[in-house]
Order: sequence, then structure tokens, then C-alpha cells
Amino acid sequence: MAQEVRIGIDIGGTNTALGVVSEEGEILFRDTFPTPRHGDARRYAHEIANAIKALLDKASGAYGGVELKGIGVCAPNANYYTGTIEHAPNLSFKGIVPLAELIGEEMNGRYAVALANDANAAALGEMVYGGAKGMKDFVVYTLGTGVGSGLVVGGRLVYGHTGFAGECGHTMLIPGGRLCGCGVRGHLEAYCSASGMKRTALEVISERNAADSPLCRKSYEEMTSKDIYDAAVLGDAVALEVFERTGCYLAQAMADTVHHTSPEAIFFFGGPAAAGEFILGPIRKHLKTFLLPQFQDKVKVLASALKSGDAAIVGAAAIVA
Amino acid sequence: MAQEVRIGIDIGGTNTALGVVSEEGEILFRDTFPTPRHGDARRYAHEIANAIKALLDKASGAYGGVELKGIGVCAPNANYYTGTIEHAPNLSFKGIVPLAELIGEEMNGRYAVALANDANAAALGEMVYGGAKGMKDFVVYTLGTGVGSGLVVGGRLVYGHTGFAGECGHTMLIPGGRLCGCGVRGHLEAYCSASGMKRTALEVISERNAADSPLCRKSYEEMTSKDIYDAAVLGDAVALEVFERTGCYLAQAMADTVHHTSPEAIFFFGGPAAAGEFILGPIRKHLKTFLLPQFQDKVKVLASALKSGDAAIVGAAAIVA
Repeated sequence: MAQEVRIGIDIGGTNTALGVVSEEGEILFRDTFPTPRHGDARRYAHEIANAIKALLDKASGAYGGVELKGIGVCAPNANYYTGTIEHAPNLSFKGIVPLAELIGEEMNGRYAVALANDANAAALGEMVYGGAKGMKDFVVYTLGTGVGSGLVVGGRLVYGHTGFAGECGHTMLIPGGRLCGCGVRGHLEAYCSASGMKRTALEVISERNAADSPLCRKSYEEMTSKDIYDAAVLGDAVALEVFERTGCYLAQAMADTVHHTSPEAIFFFGGPAAAGEFILGPIRKHLKTFLLPQFQDKVKVLASALKSGDAAIVGAAAIVA
Repeated sequence: MAQEVRIGIDIGGTNTALGVVSEEGEILFRDTFPTPRHGDARRYAHEIANAIKALLDKASGAYGGVELKGIGVCAPNANYYTGTIEHAPNLSFKGIVPLAELIGEEMNGRYAVALANDANAAALGEMVYGGAKGMKDFVVYTLGTGVGSGLVVGGRLVYGHTGFAGECGHTMLIPGGRLCGCGVRGHLEAYCSASGMKRTALEVISERNAADSPLCRKSYEEMTSKDIYDAAVLGDAVALEVFERTGCYLAQAMADTVHHTSPEAIFFFGGPAAAGEFILGPIRKHLKTFLLPQFQDKVKVLASALKSGDAAIVGAAAIVA
């Protein structure tokens, strides 16, 4: 019998990555090319379709035929309901782009094509291939350039009335606080994204006489969240305080999420999440102080079980699973 | 054909109210008795069953027979999954009380009995009998002694992993702010419950030289949210400022809810909600400032369409609808 596979496509501002994903969530073959700046969505769909066909040929050759179950695309500002990308600031395709339809046409209408944003794809990937297998109610927070989230309720991803549900990065953490990229002050993303953690590092340095911290030798521009992690490993007090505060911020936001949908687990995915117990320890400690009694010890805080390099493609494939 | 009816039971710390509810959400017959302080749950279930039977006899007589589709109970600290009331501080029944089972036994096992908390019942009532008919994604905020909420996603009430989802009254509004009844500082409930609005009134008075406000002639204990409404109707600047701030608080919390589940509408129910445009106007104005662009003008803010005196019983009936 032919191997059943899905195609997962991860559209980023810089690169477009795609892969042939097995039923077990392994990427059998993969490809990547620069996301074009030509702004012609139909031409882009054609380029994607060519890449898909080349990968399917390879997989077919290797496995003696494959059966393609569908094509999933994760992209910024993706609307699941309409299959469109809407006003994505970091892409050259302007306005409302019916990318699912265009890819479907380029594949001669033979395959289902579905589209969702990256955090929703991460949640679906976790459910279908990762640590949330068998869970009906869970949440994934993605920490990176921004803070995203995907909510699963009763075994189904929450898209909401608009198709854009799950924007926990833009829930209010501290009213009147740091300016968020969206223009509102105080959102979680302004504190817990990669640059949010750097802002916290500068804040801690500004408060302390901490000239011995390796983070004092980096400019804001030079500094990365990896630098903060490396300093924490060496026991640097500034870096440890950054994780302590970041964990407290995340715990406050997570408690709000728990008070909304009462998930069984919250998964963390992305760079800061890779810091493991440096971040998970403070989250768990502070979460206790924010939760109502009926939720105490009823929500697990876990690192994503997806391989970080594979998660976007695997998550995209899960959109059509 | 016999009239199809449901029984709705609203258990409060002071009174137990129940009614026979028609398919259209009208209460055909009703009864109320003091919630007993004897602490014997089986005896209470027996008393409830007697009241149900008496009401059904009346309804049967009036309509030439009725067909009972089920019994819904709304109660504090209710767990939908288990049908239990768990550690309710304002009831004499201690520990974990299997009230749905006990009532079912007292009704000789002939009827389905389901149990949920009052905010979840309000959401179900709105969906089955009220303004949310036909909506798949909406939220109800209940404002009263506390602040509760019920979330509906994809046409289903969200109970979550624990059965206790929808506690938006205990999401964080202002970190380190007012002490909430639950012991945590800064929760929405500490600002927007009936007593939260009184606290805001005292705060406004404390900030202003406002001796001409009628609210200056009331002690905290004497003051009611009705007093604030009455003063607002007369154009009192303190009362209007209370509604302005309360609307801003609610808008901030609502935006967080929208960023979680992206509902089509948020309904308000309870005393402060009865203030109509005094509260809805500020909410709508401030909500714009908190929402991401993709949610702007995509969420309606509405007063509940349920009659306030009937809503608890009608909502309870909807739990088994």
C-alpha cells in the first residue's frame, strides 16, 4: 500500500519551507526557497506547486508511490475559514490573497488545501504529532519574534467568529506598560517575545549595579535570547532575574488563559521555551499564586514535544489532518 | 400532544428558585423556597424533588399533560462533568455534593439531571432562548455579587479539562491592584462586580472635591449599584465617571477574551448591565483602543435578551436542552 503523506508548507517573511510529512509526523523530504518579493500571488502559488511536485516525485520514487492526503500551509495573518492571507505586513503579497485556492488550482484541484497561522499550526502539530496526542483541551504558546498561541477546546482548534482566535500575545499584561509592536501598551508580547526578554534584561541592568554581567557587554541590537540563556547557565544574576520575571509574566497570562478555557496542559514552543527549567521553573512557581483553587495542580506546563526545526512544517501538515 | 417542558432550578445561598420552562423559554409555573441551612444534601434533594413534582402537577393540569425533557440545575461551584457542587462557601452542604445524582434518584431515575454554574447557565440560556440564538461563538459576562462568564465555542459551552472553565471574573485586570474576594490582587471582579463599582465610586470621590454628588451622602455599606445608576441618570459627574472607568475595565478584559476565542458577540447580564448605554457606551468606546485590527468592528457588545428575573431559571433549564 502506498505511504500516506501530507505536505506541510511554512511561509515566512524570508523563506518558504516545505516538506513531505509521514503519518507519524516525520519529514521524509524537504525543500526551502526564498519567499519571493515579486508580489505576484499566482506566480508564487505556481512556484510552490512546482516545489510540491518535485518533492512528491522524490517521495514516490523512494516509497514506490505515495498517497497525498492534503496540503497544509502556515502563514502570517492566515484566515482558516477563507484560506486567505490578509494584509500580512512582512510579505510582498498585498491585500487579501486567496492562497489556498491558488495552490489548489495549481495542483489541478486534486487536493484539499488548508491554511492557518503559525501558532494555530503549532497547536495542531502538537495535537496530531506531538505531546498533546489524546488531549481534548490544551493551549500552545509560541515564543519568538512575537508571542502567539493556539487554543484547542474539546479536541478542536478554536478559530472563532473571525478565524483569527488565539492571539494571547496581545492580551493585556500590564496596563499602560511597554509599547507593543501592535501599538497598544502593556501586551504580553512586549514582555515575553525574544525582544521582550531583551527589554527585560536592559530593565534589570538599569536597576542594578551589575557591571559584572556578561549581558552588560552587549548592546540591545547585539543581544539575543540565546545570550541570556548562556549567561543564565553561567549563573549570571541578571540573566536569572530575566527568566524569573519572564516566568512571572507568562504565569500571569497563562492563568488568564486557564481561567478562560481550563486546559489540561499549556505547551511552550520557540527560542525562550528551549531554556527549559530556567523558564518552566519560574512559570510553575508563579502560576500557583495566580490560579483559583479549582485549577491548582490541574494544568501541566510543558515544553513542546515537536522538534524545533521541524515544527512549522509538521504543524502545517496537521492543518489538513 | 403534550407540551414539552424542562425544569430549571437556581440554587442561591439564600433562596432556591425553580420553574417549568416551555420550549420557547417562558416560565409556565414557578416556586421558590429558602435554601436550607441543615446541611443534609439528600434531604435537600428530596425537598427539591417535592417542589418539582408539585410544579409538574400544576403544569399537567393546565396543559392536559406535559412531557418533561430534563432537569437543569445552576449552582455555585458546580461541576458539569460530575454533576457535583464542590466546596461552595455560601451553602450549608459541605465538601463534594453529588446533587445531580441525588435529585435524579429522588425523581426515580426517570429524568436527565445536569448541573452547571450560574454564568455557564446564563450563556446556555442566551444561546437556547435569548439573543445568541443561531450564534456559534459568543461569551456572556454576568455582573453581580461577582463577575462570572460563560464561553461558547463552535456552538458548545466550554467546560474545559476541569469542568470549571469561564472564570473571566478572575482574570488579571491590574497587577498588584485591588484585593479580590479570591485573595489575589487585581482581578476584574474586584473592579466590576457590584461592590467593585462601589469601590470605584469611593475612589472617584476620594480623588475629587465632589461634595455635591448624591453618592457622597451614602456610606460604602449603604451604597448600591442602583444608587450609582440613579445618580448617573441625574447627570452626577462622580457616577458618570464610575461608569466610564467600569466600561474601560470591562473593555480591557473583553479584549483579552476576544483575543482568546474571537466571539461574534459579548453579552452582559446582571445589575450593572441594566444600566444600558451608561455602561455599554464606555465599553464600546474603549474596546476599540484595546483590540487588534483584525477584531475591530467584528464583535458586538450587547445586553442580555433574557428577562433578568427569569434568566437563572431559564438558563438552568437550558443546561439539559
